[in-house]
Amino acid sequence: MTSVVGPPSEFSRVRRLPDRADYDMATIRRILAATMIGHVGVLREGRPVVIPMLFGHVDDVLYLHGSVASQLLRAMSDGIEACFTATVIDGLVYARSAFHHSMNYRSVVIAGTATPVDGDEKIRALRAIVEHITPGRWDEARPPNDLELRQTAVLRMPIEEASAKIRAAGPADDAEDLALPIWAGQMPVTTHFTDPVDADDLVQGIDPSPAVTRLRRSGAARG
Amino acid sequence: MTSVVGPPSEFSRVRRLPDRADYDMATIRRILAATMIGHVGVLREGRPVVIPMLFGHVDDVLYLHGSVASQLLRAMSDGIEACFTATVIDGLVYARSAFHHSMNYRSVVIAGTATPVDGDEKIRALRAIVEHITPGRWDEARPPNDLELRQTAVLRMPIEEASAKIRAAGPADDAEDLALPIWAGQMPVTTHFTDPVDADDLVQGIDPSPAVTRLRRSGAARG
Repeated sequence: MTSVVGPPSEFSRVRRLPDRADYDMATIRRILAATMIGHVGVLREGRPVVIPMLFGHVDDVLYLHGSVASQLLRAMSDGIEACFTATVIDGLVYARSAFHHSMNYRSVVIAGTATPVDGDEKIRALRAIVEHITPGRWDEARPPNDLELRQTAVLRMPIEEASAKIRAAGPADDAEDLALPIWAGQMPVTTHFTDPVDADDLVQGIDPSPAVTRLRRSGAARG
Repeated sequence: MTSVVGPPSEFSRVRRLPDRADYDMATIRRILAATMIGHVGVLREGRPVVIPMLFGHVDDVLYLHGSVASQLLRAMSDGIEACFTATVIDGLVYARSAFHHSMNYRSVVIAGTATPVDGDEKIRALRAIVEHITPGRWDEARPPNDLELRQTAVLRMPIEEASAKIRAAGPADDAEDLALPIWAGQMPVTTHFTDPVDADDLVQGIDPSPAVTRLRRSGAARG
């Protein structure tokens, strides 16, 4: 357990099973790269609400984008307390005991204040969000115009108060259960892209672009 | 858009893109069945925190289980305001414009108070959580003993204030972009189980159990 992005505050420190916790920035970046979306928690009228959001990251900054970003920002343009969590499921873990059934997973939790971005940073953020999913796609697509930029809300969160948690192991049964005649092990979970499907209104004769084809060929998708 | 689980409160009503919203309980159940984990938002020291959690559901009750459930319950045994969100990603959506890039997904948001369960309900809840991932596994595994039950925290949330949101369509480009020489369409995303892997300490001669084999054969995993 290293501590590059920290030291972690009392808030972000993984409280249970600290052997599964890892605060290394490289680990956090790898997990972010391995996930397609995050789940973002904010307060609305004093109550927690969790929303799936697209994201990208540049250096040590996370950028968030989603349909609710606008409404959140309308309410609080000076920033909102947020918690971003992204999780990849790597496998199901079967123990002899029901109690020790588990999952193998990698997750990142980033806490902090999300603030709106504008101007050049907004365009860089949108590029990062598109490129996070499909490297190379930004330069293939028609760039956003001024109206679209005004309609799009993007939030920025520094990756400072962050932690990663990883479980990557077989079942951990109690010693007295090991001889039980019950199968134990793991079932890996993988996510894949399948063949691209043309839009109904696609002009005839346009093939999937290099960025899309490259992503398809890369095989495994992200969690 | 129907409203069986409601009518939705002002809080849970999907505020943006209401054409993507669906409040039908059957839809909510189908999406819950299609996801392996949820992301749960609660308040800790007044700040939002989002944690991945296993879950199950019985009738109109959601049960949550995770390593942090215990610490949350220690703090507030009379229940905590929570928001449970589960999302399945079905595909990447490529538009001609960067602005209209999107995802096809199905998500459920359930808001309410999470309270601890005990006694028979706790065992039913744990069974539902194990069976949610792998139908038939509960009866194969060694049932929990009293010590394990005491060590396990399970939360209950009524599925009352709930909404579903679904996007399942091709790109929605502006009319003036349709003729651009840019590929547009979808890339489906699928999740699969691969072959079960025996635990290192598995007694020789035990094959994967029927529940595990059945799940493996069922093909596509959940999001």
